[in-house]
Amino acid sequence: MKKSVPLYMISDSVGETSLKLVNAAAAQFPTVDFDLSYRFPFTKDEEELKSILGDALKDSAVVVTTLVSDNLTQIVEDFAERTGLQYINLMSQFMDIVHQKTGVAPLQQAGVVHKLNQEYFDRVAAIEFAVKYDDGKDAKGFLEADLVLLGISRTSKTPLSMYLANNRIKVANLPLIPEVPLPEQIKAVPKEKIIGLVIEPEVQKKIRMSRLNSLGLAENSRYSDINRIKEELDYALKVYDELGAFTLDVTNKSIEESATLICEHLDNAL
Amino acid sequence: MKKSVPLYMISDSVGETSLKLVNAAAAQFPTVDFDLSYRFPFTKDEEELKSILGDALKDSAVVVTTLVSDNLTQIVEDFAERTGLQYINLMSQFMDIVHQKTGVAPLQQAGVVHKLNQEYFDRVAAIEFAVKYDDGKDAKGFLEADLVLLGISRTSKTPLSMYLANNRIKVANLPLIPEVPLPEQIKAVPKEKIIGLVIEPEVQKKIRMSRLNSLGLAENSRYSDINRIKEELDYALKVYDELGAFTLDVTNKSIEESATLICEHLDNAL
Repeated sequence: MKKSVPLYMISDSVGETSLKLVNAAAAQFPTVDFDLSYRFPFTKDEEELKSILGDALKDSAVVVTTLVSDNLTQIVEDFAERTGLQYINLMSQFMDIVHQKTGVAPLQQAGVVHKLNQEYFDRVAAIEFAVKYDDGKDAKGFLEADLVLLGISRTSKTPLSMYLANNRIKVANLPLIPEVPLPEQIKAVPKEKIIGLVIEPEVQKKIRMSRLNSLGLAENSRYSDINRIKEELDYALKVYDELGAFTLDVTNKSIEESATLICEHLDNAL
Repeated sequence: MKKSVPLYMISDSVGETSLKLVNAAAAQFPTVDFDLSYRFPFTKDEEELKSILGDALKDSAVVVTTLVSDNLTQIVEDFAERTGLQYINLMSQFMDIVHQKTGVAPLQQAGVVHKLNQEYFDRVAAIEFAVKYDDGKDAKGFLEADLVLLGISRTSKTPLSMYLANNRIKVANLPLIPEVPLPEQIKAVPKEKIIGLVIEPEVQKKIRMSRLNSLGLAENSRYSDINRIKEELDYALKVYDELGAFTLDVTNKSIEESATLICEHLDNAL
């Protein structure tokens, strides 16, 4: 039987940091069954916090907190000391080091990271841009974009565009099809802004077959034919060469990994 | 003069957890100038790690690591002990507690969280869904969606849809315009899946003016007229009432905050 560990994530804001950490760390224990449904965002009330901690103790849970208030942090510490509750305070160690290093005291205001500043609005604008200029919908986008993603069908252009948009990068993407001429605007894009995605044909075949499957279509169409895929990839490589694109192999890479490599390329190129 | 603190983020994978934590914690020190450009993803080589640590020490940086390998963690610990380098290891405390609690040893394999499993493909599918059914583009989406967002222009429907899609929720959204009849399909959507966004008219006016501004248009159009905005909102509230929608006020809320409240509603309703 799988060991089961309930995880309580308590935050005085959204609690995204805990969730990221918990997902990353939990992946290191594939045989343990983590219950991630105990999320307590926007916890600012002392009595509410105490009641959550009481439940966590009863459930013999691991508690991960992202609390910026000293007051609330102290409640968790006192509770843990008294009861032996196991907890990790993600914020306080970092805040203590910075406080000590700079002499500057932290604000202790919950939710400040989500303030609606210029950075925030730039992010929203980049997401709207990526939706507007997805799939080569409007060739105007290529000239306004920070980055243009090229690739044959099913090379993760859309989710990659969205992920990069979340980092405030304006992305336009274009599917490459041998029979469809390139839009003229692409040729005016500086080459360091063009990313050409490639993928191993056999892996691509599997992805396309599962795509056909999910659409309820027969799996043996030309779309998933290995020779057709190779023909498309050959064409794509020719295009990348002509445009001087940075080529990225996305085979077996997650969106996060591909996006991180693209950002490294941009940092080096620009 | 602002105090300046360079932050080194070292990961054997993408390093998203560090970045989330650092952004959240840094927001608590608005008068400190954090330099977040020192990101070292995919660090798996011992010599490379030692060289990064040497640079961090020279820069008098705070180091945040997300390393899953005991070996690499030990190198950081030894280095810090010898030199006094200040560092935070985000993963190890969590992994130690789970190890101790369950007796199960962690895998220590970098990048496992990014494995391409069903959860991953569901996320990609949800992002593609949100792009396809953004802005009421295709009424078919309403019936297939896990969630339908309604709102007048500029109530953050698109970025909210994308954020929720990242959590594997399939979202379709529809802009409400008094002069445009509702698509019939909306009436067949179960009411607990319908979210109606509202916003204070004065705040909406400012957002629309800045939108017009960014498009290079005159700010005094009907689009940003307060009476027109109130008329649109009145219409939207009437629609929400008829449909039995869950109404969410997004005034001064970030996407993350609104999305968290929507997820809480879904958890309670379904």
